Amino acid sequence: MAERKTRLFKGLDLAARINTESRTLAAGLDTPPVCLVLADRDNAGARAYCERQAATAAQAGIDMRIADYAGTANAIHAQIDAIAAAADIDAAAMLLPLPHGCEPVEAALRLGPEKDVDGLHPLNAGRLAIGLPARPPATAMACLLCAEEIFGALRGLDVAIVGASRIVGRPLATLLLDAEATVTLCHVATSDLAAHTRVADLVVTAAGVPGLIGAGHLKPGAVVLDVAVTATPDGLRGDVDLAAVDGHAGLVSHVPDGVGPVTTACLFRNIVEAALARRRAALQATRTAH
Amino acid sequence: MAERKTRLFKGLDLAARINTESRTLAAGLDTPPVCLVLADRDNAGARAYCERQAATAAQAGIDMRIADYAGTANAIHAQIDAIAAAADIDAAAMLLPLPHGCEPVEAALRLGPEKDVDGLHPLNAGRLAIGLPARPPATAMACLLCAEEIFGALRGLDVAIVGASRIVGRPLATLLLDAEATVTLCHVATSDLAAHTRVADLVVTAAGVPGLIGAGHLKPGAVVLDVAVTATPDGLRGDVDLAAVDGHAGLVSHVPDGVGPVTTACLFRNIVEAALARRRAALQATRTAH
Repeated sequence: MAERKTRLFKGLDLAARINTESRTLAAGLDTPPVCLVLADRDNAGARAYCERQAATAAQAGIDMRIADYAGTANAIHAQIDAIAAAADIDAAAMLLPLPHGCEPVEAALRLGPEKDVDGLHPLNAGRLAIGLPARPPATAMACLLCAEEIFGALRGLDVAIVGASRIVGRPLATLLLDAEATVTLCHVATSDLAAHTRVADLVVTAAGVPGLIGAGHLKPGAVVLDVAVTATPDGLRGDVDLAAVDGHAGLVSHVPDGVGPVTTACLFRNIVEAALARRRAALQATRTAH
Repeated sequence: MAERKTRLFKGLDLAARINTESRTLAAGLDTPPVCLVLADRDNAGARAYCERQAATAAQAGIDMRIADYAGTANAIHAQIDAIAAAADIDAAAMLLPLPHGCEPVEAALRLGPEKDVDGLHPLNAGRLAIGLPARPPATAMACLLCAEEIFGALRGLDVAIVGASRIVGRPLATLLLDAEATVTLCHVATSDLAAHTRVADLVVTAAGVPGLIGAGHLKPGAVVLDVAVTATPDGLRGDVDLAAVDGHAGLVSHVPDGVGPVTTACLFRNIVEAALARRRAALQATRTAH
């Protein structure tokens, strides 16, 4: 096997640093932040993913518990209402896709902004959009931090995002604009994807289409953050055709150990921040009552 | 004077149609929607602008009243708190820039999401970002409607936005993505503005820099929506150098009668929708209490 010429980016060190910060923050609480992760028991991949997350949550000082989504849409809504009301739960992360009949935004509205750590409650999405302190969706935040790790300052950088979802592409555009990058959002209806990605210094791809990004999509030396993780008969694959871009791209993130661990660390940080805000608000309410 | 070869777009007909729809909606209410417009008495341009708006508000069935911002930041905050609590006011529009010491988002938070018709309350910005029914900022919505008027469907269209503000460029990007256009957001830190605008089918410019957009910024036949209105010794000017792009651009919007009247009509529609929602909620509360 030939040696790779394009550098592979792994996010494990960056994730470890973020987790250390989170653990320090969490240590200021009486008891560890508690986050319930809801997963679909019929989705083996999602279940394995959150079990790996839960195993590393202790690194960020978090007590993470996994639960199955209830059996019907109505039961799931009742389940989320109960989580929203539970005094001993600080946050809930809901793995997508939700079971049939449930919508992510409806679920986030039921959960409420305080315990939403996926950035899907409109108040949280709006705080990000409008420039107030926010808890951005973890994947978007992870892409920003990886880009800053690789480039330093992002001012004036040309970035193409492939995939304009409300959970990755769009909030990432907001974060990159706040960092003064120029941002192009591409998606399945884009007429000429390569025309946009070929002029970018950084391409962030989150399409879930293995092999989508080849050498013709990149300018020489370009950096690619590959956020997609698609299960294939050959294992987990991102959007980048690694063999095709080798020696042409300057750097490509590893799948799944590139942006992935940083995403998990950003989710953990959102959980710790949600716990801090909630416990502070509870303390305030107690003081006001006395 | 030579005849212009590039078509000029005026939004007066489109605005009249939107206003007719709004008037029909408003006619369903017992009394007309009441909107207070706050303007800085020291800003003659802004004052003239909202007086023109108020004069046409009746076309949309709205009772629009102009008030001066109070004299100090604290007094303005108290003024907004009073508007938020007033039973006989459905909405408030706050002309930017706010007087010294006041922040638009702080003002929108005090006003509350129900009476915010500028799309600046985080809950309203978030509803737009997350795909819930929303009242988008009027200028952004007006650009979308003008683009649809000119192009029909926007799917696959390449759009460059010049200016990534939270009140125009960013919400417009969301609206265009919802319409399946490909969107590039440029701004003052963009390294090579012309490289981005030159490949766009549609350029929306909101920079406030007269003469910024010349022929070298546009591909032949491109459409330009010029949202900027800058007061100069020669009168109101947009960002487009009309003499330079004449015969090269396919269509340029008139300043101020292109996107401008549509923006006003979209503000009126936001006001009518805010009034409908508020009166409906009040009725609901009365019924629940009985």
